[in-house]
Amino acid sequence: MRTSIATVSLSGSLTEKLTAASRAGFDGVEIFENDLLASPLTPEEIRGRCADLGLTIDLYQPMRDIEAVPADEFARNLRRARHKFELMRRLDADTVLVCSTVHPLAVDDDALAAEQLSQLADLAQEFGIRVAYEALAWGRHVSTYDHAWRIVEAAGHPALGTCLDSFHILSRGSEPKDLEGIVDIPGEKIFFLQLADAPLLAMDVLQWSRHYRCFPGQGGFDVAGLVRHVLHTGYDGPLSLEVFNDVFRQAEAGPTAVDAHRSLLVLQETVGLATPPAPVVPTGVAFAELVTPDAEPVSAVLGALGFARTARHRSKPVDLWELGEARILVNTGGSARRDGTGLAAIGLESPDPAGAARRAEALLAPVLPRRRAPQDAPLDAVAAPDGTELFFCATNRPEQPNWRADFTDAEHEAGAPGVHRIDHLALTQPWHHFDEATLFHRSVLGLHAQESVDVADPYGLMRSRAVTNPDGSVRIALSVGAAPTDDTVHAQHIALATDDVVAAARRYREAGGRLLPIPANYYDDLAARYEFADGEWETYRELGILYDRDAYGEFRHCYTVTVGRVFFELVQRDGYRGYGAQNAPVRLAAQHVLRPGR
Amino acid sequence: MRTSIATVSLSGSLTEKLTAASRAGFDGVEIFENDLLASPLTPEEIRGRCADLGLTIDLYQPMRDIEAVPADEFARNLRRARHKFELMRRLDADTVLVCSTVHPLAVDDDALAAEQLSQLADLAQEFGIRVAYEALAWGRHVSTYDHAWRIVEAAGHPALGTCLDSFHILSRGSEPKDLEGIVDIPGEKIFFLQLADAPLLAMDVLQWSRHYRCFPGQGGFDVAGLVRHVLHTGYDGPLSLEVFNDVFRQAEAGPTAVDAHRSLLVLQETVGLATPPAPVVPTGVAFAELVTPDAEPVSAVLGALGFARTARHRSKPVDLWELGEARILVNTGGSARRDGTGLAAIGLESPDPAGAARRAEALLAPVLPRRRAPQDAPLDAVAAPDGTELFFCATNRPEQPNWRADFTDAEHEAGAPGVHRIDHLALTQPWHHFDEATLFHRSVLGLHAQESVDVADPYGLMRSRAVTNPDGSVRIALSVGAAPTDDTVHAQHIALATDDVVAAARRYREAGGRLLPIPANYYDDLAARYEFADGEWETYRELGILYDRDAYGEFRHCYTVTVGRVFFELVQRDGYRGYGAQNAPVRLAAQHVLRPGR
Repeated sequence: MRTSIATVSLSGSLTEKLTAASRAGFDGVEIFENDLLASPLTPEEIRGRCADLGLTIDLYQPMRDIEAVPADEFARNLRRARHKFELMRRLDADTVLVCSTVHPLAVDDDALAAEQLSQLADLAQEFGIRVAYEALAWGRHVSTYDHAWRIVEAAGHPALGTCLDSFHILSRGSEPKDLEGIVDIPGEKIFFLQLADAPLLAMDVLQWSRHYRCFPGQGGFDVAGLVRHVLHTGYDGPLSLEVFNDVFRQAEAGPTAVDAHRSLLVLQETVGLATPPAPVVPTGVAFAELVTPDAEPVSAVLGALGFARTARHRSKPVDLWELGEARILVNTGGSARRDGTGLAAIGLESPDPAGAARRAEALLAPVLPRRRAPQDAPLDAVAAPDGTELFFCATNRPEQPNWRADFTDAEHEAGAPGVHRIDHLALTQPWHHFDEATLFHRSVLGLHAQESVDVADPYGLMRSRAVTNPDGSVRIALSVGAAPTDDTVHAQHIALATDDVVAAARRYREAGGRLLPIPANYYDDLAARYEFADGEWETYRELGILYDRDAYGEFRHCYTVTVGRVFFELVQRDGYRGYGAQNAPVRLAAQHVLRPGR
Repeated sequence: MRTSIATVSLSGSLTEKLTAASRAGFDGVEIFENDLLASPLTPEEIRGRCADLGLTIDLYQPMRDIEAVPADEFARNLRRARHKFELMRRLDADTVLVCSTVHPLAVDDDALAAEQLSQLADLAQEFGIRVAYEALAWGRHVSTYDHAWRIVEAAGHPALGTCLDSFHILSRGSEPKDLEGIVDIPGEKIFFLQLADAPLLAMDVLQWSRHYRCFPGQGGFDVAGLVRHVLHTGYDGPLSLEVFNDVFRQAEAGPTAVDAHRSLLVLQETVGLATPPAPVVPTGVAFAELVTPDAEPVSAVLGALGFARTARHRSKPVDLWELGEARILVNTGGSARRDGTGLAAIGLESPDPAGAARRAEALLAPVLPRRRAPQDAPLDAVAAPDGTELFFCATNRPEQPNWRADFTDAEHEAGAPGVHRIDHLALTQPWHHFDEATLFHRSVLGLHAQESVDVADPYGLMRSRAVTNPDGSVRIALSVGAAPTDDTVHAQHIALATDDVVAAARRYREAGGRLLPIPANYYDDLAARYEFADGEWETYRELGILYDRDAYGEFRHCYTVTVGRVFFELVQRDGYRGYGAQNAPVRLAAQHVLRPGR
């Protein structure tokens, strides 16, 4: 189906919004009136710009407070409408959105509403324009889609139809049965369909609507269920996004538009309107790649952790370090960030690397060059929203290109296999793109997203959300700081699974490694909360091992000091399913203590 | 009364929080458990640090999920409590907060709750500790203060009392009569009083509590009314602030603590516990002072607006420009900001400058040196939270020091008096201190705060709130951007009142001044919304004059282009009481068009 987006969903000038919508692949736009008023372009220039960009103007919106008012008020409304219809002709827009009134003078009289909307439609018809009447969730007298439809039906005017909006319908806590009435509306009388999702918040619906909407799949609404009902009517207009969101207002329009269009592609897949290449869920982590301007500090930490430098890339300054099944690449090539060592790429084991890349591309992920150098194995790779490069790997599978074959074995043997593997990777997300990151990992990689949790840092509140594959062999924790400029976040890390965290921590320390010091007060509290076997608590306190427990098991973990922007965690999870969020505030405070300048 | 603040209300490490609380003048603190757990200081070191800073530890908090549980669970709770009581002795803290349970195993049995709390109090008594039991608004079985008190009363234990918390009481939408039960509680059984305000939001009370609390006087609760009831009981413990707020978590602890303590000083004045010097409400704007590294561009704008350079400071590079009753100082001295021309100071006409400064000082405003140079008139001045210097002036009043006497008349005469005056000043506030700014202007200057409004900028949502004196001769519009780093805000400006904005705009343009160009689309919309007299609309469009209307009258206004960080507005308000917020998005978009780099 055709896709469209309201200009209010994107940041910037009208020109920036239109350009971003076109580049992201939308077919059309809804022109939000205030964006037009604030634009220096004439309506004819806007029309031309849209045509040049391959965008149709699917809706002009909104007209407010039209119906069910005294006659003199309605006469003024018609005068206002005539101006707008003239404008719409200059724009070449042929559908206008009319929201159910919130005017203090409006009366609760469906017959009057129908009569006045019919008069409005008469006028619209003169201009070749259709009127789409929508119930606002907080409308004064009309607040449900079925009520709005009854008025439209009573008016019986060919230029008057209804507009359905998923936010206004689903924010009222509609039960599935409340949606059944949709299928009784003739599809040709549904003039427009606006889609938005939202997190499930118990708050004033007007504030919720104006500040917290998000793209389908990023919130808690069953937008797909609603769309299925609408498709059942025979509706064949565009699927259009109308999202008011304080974060999107500040974010760059380009990435937001891509995120938006991806959400519609996934929605179309969900309801059976489109069949992009199927998701290829990764089955493990092949490697994590660190870039650094100076390999020495991170090599020292890896060495103390027990990693051996087992191989070197044939043509690039990249070392492979291995410990059991954990593989880490250390790249001293040109792309290291100025602020030091960082996690730049992840290799994901994929049953079908080419298929994974095809899906990623279909869902608008930037595809990276398959081959970086002539002699390298051609690897499928895409960029995640935070810039992390994701390689789809088939390690040591004969029929597939093998990244490992680009490396020449060094003198060192890897340690005992199976003792260690990468438990999870924690990535810091750009503040404006946290919801996008979750949708990306879910839809592009086919991972499952867990609930979002708040974590108290001494200098602000962070949010964290994990995405995982079914057997937990791929776990990525996505974190975001309290503010766009948050420099307090130390969340980028590589967690290594071990069967015996105490032994691993001791070995690391004996090899000269430095663990993050944990305050004694933490251990006093631990003793108050749990009873431990003899000596167990003392060992944790001595080493700086943290402890947590959930319904599934116990969790013991500790942290190395930070190198550049990265640190390592040793984790022993005996059934435990979480990520130690309970202990994160203590870890964050301890990291702040070690920061230069504090 | 003694004042106290919970460490959770401030940002940073425990040490930073304690230092900030002490410097702001608090007598004591509540130690929030997580702050202690994350601190590298031992309890004895924390106790010593507090003693050095002159702070008592008035409360340790919180203990959760203690009461009304099965016996084995309760035994574990007592074990945990013993650990905490030992810790509290090391801290020298003698009151602990126990929140009503939210535990899934807790039963709805007041007798069991009383019995178990009594056992807890027995144990506490061994350590010389008192237990303050508080009803959480979302408590599983106990969610109101009177219910918590009935349980405490039934227990009848000398070491068990109640804690009242204004958020938990007032967030439940309590009517004034619901508070009457407070006075029936014996004051000596109210072991603690926690205070917080909050904006009136219809949202989930747990989320509201954890993210949106603010200091008394910054929200919509009648905190003073509640405190009056509590004082009636004979309560003589501290007034203590417990505020969970996402913004305060990120803000620097020092200014937040000052803001916090000011809120308690004002609260004590409101309920008659303290009598700081009375507010001296300013009666007009004596001058606005611009600092600039280069006087030429702003002088050109002032000249085109009709200002004459009427005087020069005797000893400093400061010119006085006058137009009617509007006076603007242009200072090319050393303090100009690197980013160019900015509004640095405001002279406020004061009936009693010394009294105004005494109140400001009593309410923790930084007092500035009275005399900048030996020969200058001694002027009382303080700094607002955004750094703007506020001078309390007595222009041309013989008995008072006169700032005007520091200036030597120049060759130019001022224009016709009375035609122009400063209508309002718009100041951009630091993102983390918007609520503080409002409380400052209300309490320190005695101005009235209007409702906060949202304003859509193309690159984010701004908030704006005006503070005024009774006759409107002092109006300051405080604005804040969408994010801490927002560089899109162009809100700092000086609005000049005129009786004829059309004539003023024409004169400015003819004198070579450049007005902000307003898009033609705005005028098409204006014609749709209102009917104008012949030629009126065409004149507005020609000049770039914006129009608004409220219940009190009409508003016509236009803007100069921006110089550095400042622009001027010409306003004609014929009864209208607002600030043209309706037109602000169009103005902001037009300003973005002119920005370099767009």
